Amino acid sequence: MKDKVVLAFSGGLDTSVSIKWLQEKQKVDVITATVDVGQGDNLKEIEEKAYKIGVKKHYSIDAKKEFVDDYVFPSIKANGLYEGKYPLATALARPLIASKLVEVAEKEGASAVSHGCTGKGNDQVRFDVTIKALNPSLKIVAPVREWNMSRDEEIKYAKKHNIPIQIKKSVYSIDQNLWGRSIESGPLEDPSNEPSNEVFEWTTPIEKTPDKAEYVNIAFENGIPTSINGKSGNMVQTITRLNQTVGKHGVGFIDHMEDRLVGIKSRETYEAPAATAIIEAHKDLEKLVLTRHELQAKVPIEQQWAWLVYSGLWVEPLMDALNAFIDETQKRVNGSVKLKLYKGNCRVVGRNSPNSLYNVKLATYTSSSSFNQRSAEGFIELWGLPSRVAKGVKKGGLAKRRKAN
Amino acid sequence: MKDKVVLAFSGGLDTSVSIKWLQEKQKVDVITATVDVGQGDNLKEIEEKAYKIGVKKHYSIDAKKEFVDDYVFPSIKANGLYEGKYPLATALARPLIASKLVEVAEKEGASAVSHGCTGKGNDQVRFDVTIKALNPSLKIVAPVREWNMSRDEEIKYAKKHNIPIQIKKSVYSIDQNLWGRSIESGPLEDPSNEPSNEVFEWTTPIEKTPDKAEYVNIAFENGIPTSINGKSGNMVQTITRLNQTVGKHGVGFIDHMEDRLVGIKSRETYEAPAATAIIEAHKDLEKLVLTRHELQAKVPIEQQWAWLVYSGLWVEPLMDALNAFIDETQKRVNGSVKLKLYKGNCRVVGRNSPNSLYNVKLATYTSSSSFNQRSAEGFIELWGLPSRVAKGVKKGGLAKRRKAN
Amino acid sequence: MKDKVVLAFSGGLDTSVSIKWLQEKQKVDVITATVDVGQGDNLKEIEEKAYKIGVKKHYSIDAKKEFVDDYVFPSIKANGLYEGKYPLATALARPLIASKLVEVAEKEGASAVSHGCTGKGNDQVRFDVTIKALNPSLKIVAPVREWNMSRDEEIKYAKKHNIPIQIKKSVYSIDQNLWGRSIESGPLEDPSNEPSNEVFEWTTPIEKTPDKAEYVNIAFENGIPTSINGKSGNMVQTITRLNQTVGKHGVGFIDHMEDRLVGIKSRETYEAPAATAIIEAHKDLEKLVLTRHELQAKVPIEQQWAWLVYSGLWVEPLMDALNAFIDETQKRVNGSVKLKLYKGNCRVVGRNSPNSLYNVKLATYTSSSSFNQRSAEGFIELWGLPSRVAKGVKKGGLAKRRKAN
Amino acid sequence: MKDKVVLAFSGGLDTSVSIKWLQEKQKVDVITATVDVGQGDNLKEIEEKAYKIGVKKHYSIDAKKEFVDDYVFPSIKANGLYEGKYPLATALARPLIASKLVEVAEKEGASAVSHGCTGKGNDQVRFDVTIKALNPSLKIVAPVREWNMSRDEEIKYAKKHNIPIQIKKSVYSIDQNLWGRSIESGPLEDPSNEPSNEVFEWTTPIEKTPDKAEYVNIAFENGIPTSINGKSGNMVQTITRLNQTVGKHGVGFIDHMEDRLVGIKSRETYEAPAATAIIEAHKDLEKLVLTRHELQAKVPIEQQWAWLVYSGLWVEPLMDALNAFIDETQKRVNGSVKLKLYKGNCRVVGRNSPNSLYNVKLATYTSSSSFNQRSAEGFIELWGLPSRVAKGVKKGGLAKRRKAN
Repeated sequence: MKDKVVLAFSGGLDTSVSIKWLQEKQKVDVITATVDVGQGDNLKEIEEKAYKIGVKKHYSIDAKKEFVDDYVFPSIKANGLYEGKYPLATALARPLIASKLVEVAEKEGASAVSHGCTGKGNDQVRFDVTIKALNPSLKIVAPVREWNMSRDEEIKYAKKHNIPIQIKKSVYSIDQNLWGRSIESGPLEDPSNEPSNEVFEWTTPIEKTPDKAEYVNIAFENGIPTSINGKSGNMVQTITRLNQTVGKHGVGFIDHMEDRLVGIKSRETYEAPAATAIIEAHKDLEKLVLTRHELQAKVPIEQQWAWLVYSGLWVEPLMDALNAFIDETQKRVNGSVKLKLYKGNCRVVGRNSPNSLYNVKLATYTSSSSFNQRSAEGFIELWGLPSRVAKGVKKGGLAKRRKAN
Repeated sequence: MKDKVVLAFSGGLDTSVSIKWLQEKQKVDVITATVDVGQGDNLKEIEEKAYKIGVKKHYSIDAKKEFVDDYVFPSIKANGLYEGKYPLATALARPLIASKLVEVAEKEGASAVSHGCTGKGNDQVRFDVTIKALNPSLKIVAPVREWNMSRDEEIKYAKKHNIPIQIKKSVYSIDQNLWGRSIESGPLEDPSNEPSNEVFEWTTPIEKTPDKAEYVNIAFENGIPTSINGKSGNMVQTITRLNQTVGKHGVGFIDHMEDRLVGIKSRETYEAPAATAIIEAHKDLEKLVLTRHELQAKVPIEQQWAWLVYSGLWVEPLMDALNAFIDETQKRVNGSVKLKLYKGNCRVVGRNSPNSLYNVKLATYTSSSSFNQRSAEGFIELWGLPSRVAKGVKKGGLAKRRKAN
Repeated sequence: MKDKVVLAFSGGLDTSVSIKWLQEKQKVDVITATVDVGQGDNLKEIEEKAYKIGVKKHYSIDAKKEFVDDYVFPSIKANGLYEGKYPLATALARPLIASKLVEVAEKEGASAVSHGCTGKGNDQVRFDVTIKALNPSLKIVAPVREWNMSRDEEIKYAKKHNIPIQIKKSVYSIDQNLWGRSIESGPLEDPSNEPSNEVFEWTTPIEKTPDKAEYVNIAFENGIPTSINGKSGNMVQTITRLNQTVGKHGVGFIDHMEDRLVGIKSRETYEAPAATAIIEAHKDLEKLVLTRHELQAKVPIEQQWAWLVYSGLWVEPLMDALNAFIDETQKRVNGSVKLKLYKGNCRVVGRNSPNSLYNVKLATYTSSSSFNQRSAEGFIELWGLPSRVAKGVKKGGLAKRRKAN
Repeated sequence: MKDKVVLAFSGGLDTSVSIKWLQEKQKVDVITATVDVGQGDNLKEIEEKAYKIGVKKHYSIDAKKEFVDDYVFPSIKANGLYEGKYPLATALARPLIASKLVEVAEKEGASAVSHGCTGKGNDQVRFDVTIKALNPSLKIVAPVREWNMSRDEEIKYAKKHNIPIQIKKSVYSIDQNLWGRSIESGPLEDPSNEPSNEVFEWTTPIEKTPDKAEYVNIAFENGIPTSINGKSGNMVQTITRLNQTVGKHGVGFIDHMEDRLVGIKSRETYEAPAATAIIEAHKDLEKLVLTRHELQAKVPIEQQWAWLVYSGLWVEPLMDALNAFIDETQKRVNGSVKLKLYKGNCRVVGRNSPNSLYNVKLATYTSSSSFNQRSAEGFIELWGLPSRVAKGVKKGGLAKRRKAN
């Protein structure tokens, strides 16, 4: 009996060719699995295609709710933005897909899992580290990383083996799920090129956005969005809808230089309307309910969180400690934030919370203030003391040293 | 002979009343000083007003170039944004004004300096700490912090003493200089209120912005903007013009909850078109030329920098160390960034640099790549090793402990 | 009926005089409370003294177990050392004592609480912040901070009012509890003076320590010491005994320059034998069971923890978040550490844990190794890539620029 | 003509066998280089041995002064201790040796450099990254990492090829230079084993140390030790002598669990008498002259510095920025520290500095104090304000929510 390999199958060129390549080169039976994290593909078609190419068995797995609950929600609480910009959509989905592959492999008694990542990106790290952590006995086969086929050779190989492929005309390399869409390659590889309109699918070009502003109210409980414009319920649907609402106003396009884990810089563009709006609102609400000490301390925690996720270390125990820190702060992140969407702008225009630390009586400059202004003098005296003493010594010391010469 | 006090004089109600109050209550001769940091006031009128109220002497000091060179430029290099939002315009100007007051006081043989800050804000700290650090023998008198007059009582006091005042109708409390404008009080004190159009002076409401996008090229040398659209030269004028260009497209409005040093939260709104555009461009250029290690390490350095400036510790020796770190990184921050201004949006759409670390040969997914993909496997093996071992021990440990029970 | 004030009473000169001063100046009834945190005083004598001076009521409160469980244990988990040296003994006890004062005040319907802190130390902050946080309606009276009596005047005042005092000959100012002892003042105020033997009470001068080494085994569960040399049980007694065992070998003396919160430096000496040994052991065990990522991330968390405790912010919500982070990591800090005590030295000489991440098969340089050395090449290739590219650009860039001139 | 390879040659088994292996397997001419960083070997003998085995040319390079000036001094300023314990002796020397290999290779027109590191340690990373950064065109050959010989097979190979070897009886793997000595392997691989006396060469076992304490005065200028007990001059000799003085009293032994870069934990023991004493003194002096803000901020800077050095990234540009930060702070680190060496203890017992920030008039609790105690009340009021407000809201919020249920 042949060994079994479980392959993450997207239906695209790389993984279609991979099926045959695995069968031919590795002499294995191939089982495919397609994990739905909101990428919007037709799962039925993908399944049919898998069988057409000759897999022994195919799994279609709906992981959208799990993706939102266990991956997107923690990222919102962490204001998850790699290098201050990227909402981590693909990075968050990889460990989830990896865990599904392991589940299938264990169920099927497979000896290996396989994915279509190249050897220069971040995704291979996210897959491999998670898979090996969850089941060290599983081998990993990454055909694209191993073979030496160019795109043209792949197409030739597909034709030769009667692999049904749709040759997309797009020059862009795309990955998407319900938390965002990434667009790479082609003319975007030159960082001095402005992205042309053809890269936009989720965000309307600003010149075509509605002429009327739209307000969106996002309610949060324990740092997690629970309703949008008063509608709660299925968060998978809610986020999907929010992508449309926000994207329609041209909000959520991101373009920056990014440091891949493997040590190279690349120019990355993303569309993430819902993520952009939700994180902007969440950050603002935090400023209303967390103390200055909490806000300052959370910045490096968030930076580490995003780095671990980006760099494929979802299974690292430090993640648990960072999440524990974050969850503790989120207990008071309750309330709602009002966003104004208009012509590519997403502005917070109002916020309120039962846990608000804002006290108009303290803050107001009017005479109704309850703040004792006389405290300030003593405070300033001691607040500045170390710096002032040092400044004095510096000047004195310099003076003395000058004299000594 | 009476003691002399040097008062920072803006020409407004508080400091106009302060002149008389100092003369009357403290029995001193008042010398006024108005420091021009680009606030756009008529210095001649202010001087006349000072003499009219009865000061012994008045100084009009043009500190705009010094402000840009020694305060704004370091802030650009530090991507200076307090709590991720506020470009520190007022915070940067205060220590400069304080140093000018000390200079005048030393020249005039004054025994004290005076400013119009209240006891609940940050500005008193910035003034007092700087003044005492520069000259510990100078006393500080802050009339507004000491007296107990409401606004109405101040106006009454002014009328009684024939102090010429213009009673502005605005309900907002405003401070501005060439790096930004802050707007507080009135309906803004309720964080759930959307700012009405009357708070905007520097940024055009989006619905009235031009229908055509405008591109701006900012060139940087050593982290400092040196020319805009190819025009170099006087940076005071350049920044002032940039405020207009950027503001015209509705870019640069900021609205967030802020933690004052004195321990209270307040809702703050700002307009800072030039600062917004320059810092966005600067951050983007840094991503092209600094390593991942530098970028990660600079985040907490910037956070500390902004906090020290915000909290009045401009004189703290740690500032020198943070600046030394930052300046070292900025040696490679050369190049130019292309911004697209349109309908409130300020997007970086292109960047290039002679120090670019981006290498298309390494990054490309095309077959022209010079990246050795086989390195990745070894890398991933060791990169994930600590986390994988820990995960294994965690599972094993749990298993063993379960058995033990 | 007079107002009631609850005074923290130690039985010493300051608080004895405070009783009368409160009665006389504030016209209040004084209720005293002595909180036992292991300072080793005779509570019965203190109570008698309080009544002799004329208090209405006295509370003797045994808080030793609470101190260990809720204050010392979290500090062990956080490796709590302010500025890398001070185990925070006094700093940890203050918020506990403050909470007991508030409890008594609420029970007795008192309008204020009182303590004997001066206006230049850290303790006043710890008391005042905690008290006001727990019950903002309580006033705080700090007689020593308010009156202007020198030590001689206090003694005169005591004699005049028949307050029984023991005039201690010691020139040192001392505070102690079961987690440590602090010694200040007198000749120690000169940082260039070596402490003379008279400051040592808990640690034997090294020349008088036993000539035979002693081994101590400390077992930890979830980061907390649970048994010492196999004896578990009452941790108050265990820590007290450990102070003796460790101190007998001359271990636990600390001498450093310290930054007080109020902005001044002071020379501080401490004796903390048990704290020194336990924290040393705890840190070592963590290195066996936590990943590199966890260890690196915990350093700044610990630094913040110690700073909040030192600076009186025990009630700050950030403490909860830091503790959540720490507690998560401590779930695997199980095992035991062997310490060798000898002539002032406390060396970890062995450690083991069911959660050990050390894998001799991976680490060994012998041929039994399970580590795949070929992975290293790929790892190094990518690990150094960003730095190498930057170095190349730096050299190339310089070269190009040189040519350009 | 054959290609040339420059091999770092220590004279030990691995590199002796490497010469032949390179000649035989790689068909190259071997040039050897021995870099003296204070390891105390006989360079003449090593040279003779190299020629005996058949190298074309041998370089003996004295890099001791360069090592101290450019590697050890920056490490002192950074209080360089990896994971709080390891003074980085080997880690600091590797990039220096690598740069010498590159120099020789460039002079000789060699195509490759070679070193004797295994594939599981940190040293290979330090060599490879530095070499490739300095000259990307040089190939790297690491015979030990490539061959598959056990120690016994190496010995057999040596005998077969008439390679003169001394088979040391020690079971330990040792590396040393003037900044420290590391001892690995053998019984030390079991972390629960106490190191036996045979591992000690530089530090006297405590039971054999002198019965009389010895005082050492270390003077610092700009953070660098400039004289010891008043003797300045050649710092290579001074540090070497200090190793003896301090080691004689049993000070400088280190034993901890360490995280290697390649992802595994190992038990490491070190002897570093001079490093231990100098860093302890340096840290103490910093506490006298740096502000609280500087001290707090320097902790993570130091942590990053040690990590970059440990992990082989000496060439990373971030190092320059960290050094710039550190150097700025060190301008005031002038003065002297008195250490007492006795029975394994190294205690700072006095310190003074012309830049001292300690002000006895501020710190003293006696009545001569110049500190205004009344400032404290205002300070405490505002210092605790954010935390107190949050605590109040937390309680109130909870109360309200309870009611709501």
